[in-house]
Amino acid sequence: MSEFQLHPRLQADCHVLGRSAAGWLLLQRNATLPWYLMVPESDERELQALPAAQRQPLMEAVFALAAFVKQHHGSEHTNMAAIGNLVPQLHVHVVGRYPGDACWPGVVWGNLPAGEDWSAAQLDGIRQALNEAGMIRN
Amino acid sequence: MSEFQLHPRLQADCHVLGRSAAGWLLLQRNATLPWYLMVPESDERELQALPAAQRQPLMEAVFALAAFVKQHHGSEHTNMAAIGNLVPQLHVHVVGRYPGDACWPGVVWGNLPAGEDWSAAQLDGIRQALNEAGMIRN
Repeated sequence: MSEFQLHPRLQADCHVLGRSAAGWLLLQRNATLPWYLMVPESDERELQALPAAQRQPLMEAVFALAAFVKQHHGSEHTNMAAIGNLVPQLHVHVVGRYPGDACWPGVVWGNLPAGEDWSAAQLDGIRQALNEAGMIRN
Repeated sequence: MSEFQLHPRLQADCHVLGRSAAGWLLLQRNATLPWYLMVPESDERELQALPAAQRQPLMEAVFALAAFVKQHHGSEHTNMAAIGNLVPQLHVHVVGRYPGDACWPGVVWGNLPAGEDWSAAQLDGIRQALNEAGMIRN
């Protein structure tokens, strides 16, 4: 998969935070909520189509990311989903949620109001914490 | 967990199709789309909090359910999610989707219009197929 390219829509909507063995780690360009995406290097569109040897480390990375989001952003809860109705490239959402947040108790998909982007300092802090947690490579 | 009880909201909204080692298998009482739920027997609220020995079989059952939904209902795509903003009991959604369906390309959560319930014959067919696939116990 040396030819792997992130889908243009994901590149447009997200910051690319880094990469691990499980795939690419992205963050939506809207700091209203901490909304991350994990993108495995695959041409498959759905999780169940991935080989187990790729899916299991991906899911472990997704669960570790959920724990990271709660720790780093102080989220009380997380939402996780594989949807892919609009962007065919397989990606898994991990979203930190807070009772009373901009979408609560609804979901973020199709509901998140426009908001300010993450600042350079916030992004630096996130990348450093992800590195220290071993979730992205240096 | 002999005391485990399905959350009253899940019991009210869903048919209980059966149970496997991974948990309970439910179907929303709205035949507009095939919208299933897997409910592990746990007091935890999030997937990452489950012990790996419970989470891995649960996730394998979720992926098998996604394949089942496409096969049995002819869905072109599936959406999967763990949300739990409204119902605190941990549950994973697996929803069969079709381009042009009642919510397409949006998500079903908060968007699915009211619809007819599944018929007794449809439920019998689903239970029989799940049994044959080894996804619920007789």
